[in-house]
Amino acid sequence: MKKTTIHDIARELDVTFSTVARALNDHPAISAATKAAVLETAKRLNYQQNKLASSLRSGKSHVIGIIVPSLDTSFFSSVVHGMEKVLNENGYSVLLYQTGESIKQEQKGLGTFLQSRVDGIISSVSSESDGFEFYSEIRKRQVPLLFFDRAIKELEIPSVTINDYKAGFEATEHLIKQGYTRIAHITSEKNLTIFNERFRGYREALEKYGLPFQENMVFKGTVGLELGQESVRRLQAEHLPFDAIFAAEDYTAMGALQQLLESGVQVPLQVGVIGFANEAFGAFVTPSLSTVDQQTIKMGEETARLFLKLTANKDYYGSTPEHIVLDPFVVARKSSQPQRQG
Amino acid sequence: MKKTTIHDIARELDVTFSTVARALNDHPAISAATKAAVLETAKRLNYQQNKLASSLRSGKSHVIGIIVPSLDTSFFSSVVHGMEKVLNENGYSVLLYQTGESIKQEQKGLGTFLQSRVDGIISSVSSESDGFEFYSEIRKRQVPLLFFDRAIKELEIPSVTINDYKAGFEATEHLIKQGYTRIAHITSEKNLTIFNERFRGYREALEKYGLPFQENMVFKGTVGLELGQESVRRLQAEHLPFDAIFAAEDYTAMGALQQLLESGVQVPLQVGVIGFANEAFGAFVTPSLSTVDQQTIKMGEETARLFLKLTANKDYYGSTPEHIVLDPFVVARKSSQPQRQG
Repeated sequence: MKKTTIHDIARELDVTFSTVARALNDHPAISAATKAAVLETAKRLNYQQNKLASSLRSGKSHVIGIIVPSLDTSFFSSVVHGMEKVLNENGYSVLLYQTGESIKQEQKGLGTFLQSRVDGIISSVSSESDGFEFYSEIRKRQVPLLFFDRAIKELEIPSVTINDYKAGFEATEHLIKQGYTRIAHITSEKNLTIFNERFRGYREALEKYGLPFQENMVFKGTVGLELGQESVRRLQAEHLPFDAIFAAEDYTAMGALQQLLESGVQVPLQVGVIGFANEAFGAFVTPSLSTVDQQTIKMGEETARLFLKLTANKDYYGSTPEHIVLDPFVVARKSSQPQRQG
Repeated sequence: MKKTTIHDIARELDVTFSTVARALNDHPAISAATKAAVLETAKRLNYQQNKLASSLRSGKSHVIGIIVPSLDTSFFSSVVHGMEKVLNENGYSVLLYQTGESIKQEQKGLGTFLQSRVDGIISSVSSESDGFEFYSEIRKRQVPLLFFDRAIKELEIPSVTINDYKAGFEATEHLIKQGYTRIAHITSEKNLTIFNERFRGYREALEKYGLPFQENMVFKGTVGLELGQESVRRLQAEHLPFDAIFAAEDYTAMGALQQLLESGVQVPLQVGVIGFANEAFGAFVTPSLSTVDQQTIKMGEETARLFLKLTANKDYYGSTPEHIVLDPFVVARKSSQPQRQG
């Protein structure tokens, strides 16, 4: 006998797959009447929700594995919340694996997900990753794979990313429009597209506004508080004239801000500071930290929706991979707006 | 494409199934030459060692499932990092599941872990949870289970928690020793042991120092920025004399701090504030936020070590469950120390 699926129930009632899935999971957005109708139909068609049994029969576990560098940052935990919301509503459970930016952990995580027979993997690659071979293998096995935020462009894998070039350009342009002209940049030493693109945006904004690009105004290291502090100390020790800092990451911007304030520099009157990622603390500090918002919840939701759309097709890898690119926007707070002071 | 099996490799090399299986598992009885041949053939035929099958045979997946309310907070993400470190070092992979404080998600996560055949589950129960039935079921199935931070005391399950009573007592005592005498308390409306215990510590510290406890100085709600802001607005609207606030959670303390500063109150000169959990932002804000540190990394490491110790025994549930209780400590910053100011 053919097994009754959620699609059968949806067809019978002329509602969407998602409505049935949510009704079966007692989702609050579904009315009591719809739930009753779905349950009645499910019973009549002899629908079996036994997930373990059904996963063994159908090869479906209704579990999605998500690989993230670290959930310590507001950025990733917020994106993941966006994904979980949409995936849960559609009857999927979400398992998370943190790589800590280690390629070894990343491969272990991917292996663990395959072993757990997840229905798909959504990944943001670690900064160590060249990960070609491993991700190719997942593709070869026909396990649906989608990249978010950090993708490996050379692989033909669907992705949801943000326009980091534009983000870097607009953060720099914001500083220039506030009157700053000697803008230092602090970024990661790692060869990650997201940081390379922010850096390219910084250079091209300088160029567009006729400001010189100076190699010695760019500081690279392991992003974080210390890199920001150390970069400012170096700017000061080398007597490099500067009046603004664009840090490619918020904790780094915070470190720069702390070091400036400690050495008696007025922010934003003498030096403007803008970070990146809109971490939760930025709104609380004094002066409040300007930053770039990456639309994290939206990124999570778009990622989950693209995944659901693509997995609804039988042949996940059959067509040209879809790439969604989101636009970030500058969040101008006090640390970069001298006019707003006093 | 048909999946390559051990049989295919055996056929290709004209050796037995057992020889291939043992070669793949690096068994000492198999010669180096045979191992090399098997590995070469396995690679050429694109053989993937089916870990699930072998885990079903051996009962070991080397995966531990961790249930957490949310990884948004420094507290949980830091504890989890401590666990991952120790578990990874011991050959385990860690999968994470966020409940968002929902008992339904919690049950789904536990089900997903069982389905994924994890070797054990480490859980911090959701605030909605009465979870007896579900956790009893896991115990009945002899799957090793350990609680951290939030435990269900009625179940005979090993746990690692912190002494929240002592933490609440010492936070309040710190304020009293700084000279504050009218101390409001802001806490969760949820019936969670951790919050109940902090509250009890607050009451008993007041009592020990001969200060009256007033019901109308305690504010309850959903912990977070807004609860802190609203509680201060209520204190001010009702003209309740107060000179300090002990919030049972850092974001709540931050909300209180913001509201105080916005209404022109000097912190810590007129009102002292202390929070709880040592969230990352506390050191960055002005004035820096006093708080209670819960030794998160240590809690994570102790939890993992206890788990490893207990699972080394054959009979996990055979002996009286072990309970480790860690001591928190007050981190005194500027928001609660009027003497340190100018």
